[in-house]
Amino acid sequence: MGERPILHEYAASGNCYKIRLTAALLGVAIERREYDIMLGETRTAAFLNGINANGRIPVLQIGDRLLPESNAACFWLADGTRLVPSDRFARADMLRWMFWEQYNHEPNVATLRFWMRWIGEAKLSDVQRALLPAKIEAGKAALALMDDHLAKHDWLAGPALSLADICLYAYTHVADDSGLFGLADTPAVQAWLARIEAQPGYVAMGA
Amino acid sequence: MGERPILHEYAASGNCYKIRLTAALLGVAIERREYDIMLGETRTAAFLNGINANGRIPVLQIGDRLLPESNAACFWLADGTRLVPSDRFARADMLRWMFWEQYNHEPNVATLRFWMRWIGEAKLSDVQRALLPAKIEAGKAALALMDDHLAKHDWLAGPALSLADICLYAYTHVADDSGLFGLADTPAVQAWLARIEAQPGYVAMGA
Repeated sequence: MGERPILHEYAASGNCYKIRLTAALLGVAIERREYDIMLGETRTAAFLNGINANGRIPVLQIGDRLLPESNAACFWLADGTRLVPSDRFARADMLRWMFWEQYNHEPNVATLRFWMRWIGEAKLSDVQRALLPAKIEAGKAALALMDDHLAKHDWLAGPALSLADICLYAYTHVADDSGLFGLADTPAVQAWLARIEAQPGYVAMGA
Repeated sequence: MGERPILHEYAASGNCYKIRLTAALLGVAIERREYDIMLGETRTAAFLNGINANGRIPVLQIGDRLLPESNAACFWLADGTRLVPSDRFARADMLRWMFWEQYNHEPNVATLRFWMRWIGEAKLSDVQRALLPAKIEAGKAALALMDDHLAKHDWLAGPALSLADICLYAYTHVADDSGLFGLADTPAVQAWLARIEAQPGYVAMGA
């Protein structure tokens, strides 16, 4: 693979963890550079001009090329490996879950984790507070939809572990950091989390 | 390809249009089935049980298999064609723009189009009204980020038209339906829209 890819990240972010977990499961070494989002380190001119004009982490750097968006970085790492199904439908179905994650899961499950645990309920803005009921409902619906699927299938897409599982694992396994989502309500999700944690090469979020 | 894929859709939705435009540019025939989302036709038990438990269109049906998520449906249609770059980095970079579209562009540019043109400003809920300033700012930032990129590159990812362009074209070319985004502010985006419209096989949204 030539020189190591560099992950520009904030380690507590599930979006960054997805990439580390993908690399670990594939046995690919990456270099990590940490930015403290709570101190605004991804909003400096150096970051905006040099790493990502969007002001967001993660960004995967491959040589002098920069790849933002966590799920795209996972795809770059896993392209051509067992983590991307070789069957055409399963490959698209894997991406289906990854797009769904960004639209239906992350803005609810991950955002509520950040709001409740990093910002703190007392410090939420009026707009954030007004959004809480809808986000809690949408987060519960997202976890229930996964549970329904996983009650019938071991993996989200295709016959084996794929990027869909890794990308959804990242925020699902810490969903209850917000104090709002009890995984006891979704037993099939719990069993699936354990299947992922049993994979050779698995690394925990805090590792 | 065997039998024709069936697109379960609402024609005025940009997410559905992406799939029609991909199929048209590739010369692939698809069958269309229309549901009126304004009449709740995607929230019936038949739709939720038979087509998509998420209650959303589009869904692309391939034989008896169902593929929700517009960008995943586009990927299934285009997998192995010129619309998915053969270079590994460009392929991931295409997906980067497609994930970004779902997280940063669609929830602002497309949602505001729906709110202002379909629901109507006078009928917005208090929560929706409270979100307007942030969504307008985020929508402008998304269009500005595209404009910066397209001032230096003809296409979003790789050396030629790809799914990234098609998926972002869908809501960008009607961004001003909301009355909130003047494309005159983003001349590089305007020129890129024209490049897409000049492609052989291009079909308009209302076609």
